[in-house]
Amino acid sequence: MIQILVGTNRQNSLSEEIAKYYQQLLLQKNQESNIVSLKNLPEDFTASALYGNIGKNTAFNILRDEIVNATKIVMIVPEYNGSFPGVLKAFIDGLPFPAALSDKKIALVGLSAGVQGGALALSHLGDIFAYLNANVLGMRVKLIQVQKFYKDNVVTNEMYNQLLNEQIDKFIAF
Amino acid sequence: MIQILVGTNRQNSLSEEIAKYYQQLLLQKNQESNIVSLKNLPEDFTASALYGNIGKNTAFNILRDEIVNATKIVMIVPEYNGSFPGVLKAFIDGLPFPAALSDKKIALVGLSAGVQGGALALSHLGDIFAYLNANVLGMRVKLIQVQKFYKDNVVTNEMYNQLLNEQIDKFIAF
Amino acid sequence: MIQILVGTNRQNSLSEEIAKYYQQLLLQKNQESNIVSLKNLPEDFTASALYGNIGKNTAFNILRDEIVNATKIVMIVPEYNGSFPGVLKAFIDGLPFPAALSDKKIALVGLSAGVQGGALALSHLGDIFAYLNANVLGMRVKLIQVQKFYKDNVVTNEMYNQLLNEQIDKFIAF
Amino acid sequence: MIQILVGTNRQNSLSEEIAKYYQQLLLQKNQESNIVSLKNLPEDFTASALYGNIGKNTAFNILRDEIVNATKIVMIVPEYNGSFPGVLKAFIDGLPFPAALSDKKIALVGLSAGVQGGALALSHLGDIFAYLNANVLGMRVKLIQVQKFYKDNVVTNEMYNQLLNEQIDKFIAF
Repeated sequence: MIQILVGTNRQNSLSEEIAKYYQQLLLQKNQESNIVSLKNLPEDFTASALYGNIGKNTAFNILRDEIVNATKIVMIVPEYNGSFPGVLKAFIDGLPFPAALSDKKIALVGLSAGVQGGALALSHLGDIFAYLNANVLGMRVKLIQVQKFYKDNVVTNEMYNQLLNEQIDKFIAF
Repeated sequence: MIQILVGTNRQNSLSEEIAKYYQQLLLQKNQESNIVSLKNLPEDFTASALYGNIGKNTAFNILRDEIVNATKIVMIVPEYNGSFPGVLKAFIDGLPFPAALSDKKIALVGLSAGVQGGALALSHLGDIFAYLNANVLGMRVKLIQVQKFYKDNVVTNEMYNQLLNEQIDKFIAF
Repeated sequence: MIQILVGTNRQNSLSEEIAKYYQQLLLQKNQESNIVSLKNLPEDFTASALYGNIGKNTAFNILRDEIVNATKIVMIVPEYNGSFPGVLKAFIDGLPFPAALSDKKIALVGLSAGVQGGALALSHLGDIFAYLNANVLGMRVKLIQVQKFYKDNVVTNEMYNQLLNEQIDKFIAF
Repeated sequence: MIQILVGTNRQNSLSEEIAKYYQQLLLQKNQESNIVSLKNLPEDFTASALYGNIGKNTAFNILRDEIVNATKIVMIVPEYNGSFPGVLKAFIDGLPFPAALSDKKIALVGLSAGVQGGALALSHLGDIFAYLNANVLGMRVKLIQVQKFYKDNVVTNEMYNQLLNEQIDKFIAF
């Protein structure tokens, strides 16, 4: 069971749409998956689930457990302010340290309205996951100007579909 | 007036103590400053002050305005999970884009319990501030194992004090 | 006098063409500049000008002195293998440490045939220059697919020209 | 057969000593390995083996082939100027693109005289290898102030030995 983490708490995010599309691509290769969306984070989690409160917020713990119990995680990461959403890092800051992500296998997909495709976002995440002893698949997919290439629940750009499928094949074998 | 941003919302943080100490060092050089602490963020700000809600949370806006109206900002940044606190990035994600930090002058101080001193934390922040067209002072101070060298409101390590004072001199001239 | 460093030793590089174009833009704002090209590095400099041989290679020292004596440096940096050219870093490794770049002012222009514009290249350089206490202008210009937008010695893309001129104005004031 | 790449062309480098020590640790776990040292690069390789000359320098090609034919590579990387040696990147710039490192498995060991242990060096390399579709083991070992903990061909620091052996176990299983 692969966990697909939607890396933002924005409501009705394009990241969540792409997560659903990624799930369909996985299914075509007979891979079951589950979507974990940060939009389900408790509204006050930065005050109630971090630091001295780690483990104490039941609603937070539901999301936490889906990640902690995973062996493979795909992260759909939108680019905000030249990096990834702060909320994603705050979620990671609330996971049990250091075991939560240790030895887990992670694949990264970046999204951007502009032309970077989250290149720096994925670089920063790569550092954090290395620090946490998680293994990140080398092949990172960057979906540039993704809003132009997504319509009726489908990514319409052929190259993007090739890249996503290639990433999935590598991740299954990883 | 220099703004000193405490880069975590943790209560009773060492970062806040270091911010106060930094303020004293500034005062010795006749520089007035003001401490802006993320511990004062509204508990639900990730749900009420970002994305479609930018600008709508009055309590958030108080902190926002102290940064938006600043020309020089010192950031005291603890290392969490090999980078900086997610809450700091979520705060930045709630600032008006792209003007909030454009052309501002920023100095970075990293803190860690371990031996990195937030080297990667400051690297990631440097990327974000470059993206936002802010100018970051080249000299970044990294306070390694800071808890060993802070007692009774004073940083006791002579080299750290030299580095902090050198950074302040450069930042005043920046 | 602004130094414009061509960040590759490739012969007939597009980076050198862009350096000449940047020089023209500077001249339009009455700023004199000088082009320092790594194509003039001695062929054996990695064996004769680094480590125990720092300072001993006369031909290397000519380039070295143009950088060491500068106060402002613009770097034209092509993207090679997801970062900047190794030769540029090897050149930096041959500069006198730590004074060569300390307190210098640096502006970065990235070039790429693909869509990244050297985003990670400039990020890595930013880390190195921070380590060396140089001050890097926040605004980094990334010229994406630059070969499509350069003809007869002129950058033909209007947005690129706006960005380059905006960078120059900021750098003059920096 | 694991290739151990010494990431500098410095003669008599501590990196080469650590490579030999790493080789002994591998042997204790019945893993054969081969040391590839950049000190064997042709003196003029930056002029004769890159860009239009890729593949044309026979002496360079010997080193190239040891990497191109590898499936697992350990890199021993000293920290120079806040990153890794320029010569290492110039070597990578001379490898056949994009196939040379694609799908290869890489483990990183950083060395520093100071307290960073090459944290940023390994971060930058991680970006480059992700760009080249290589898979980097999450666990990066950073040997801080390594000269203090190496004597008579042995790393004397117990924690360092634990980390190196843990990395080797993970890399064998990777």
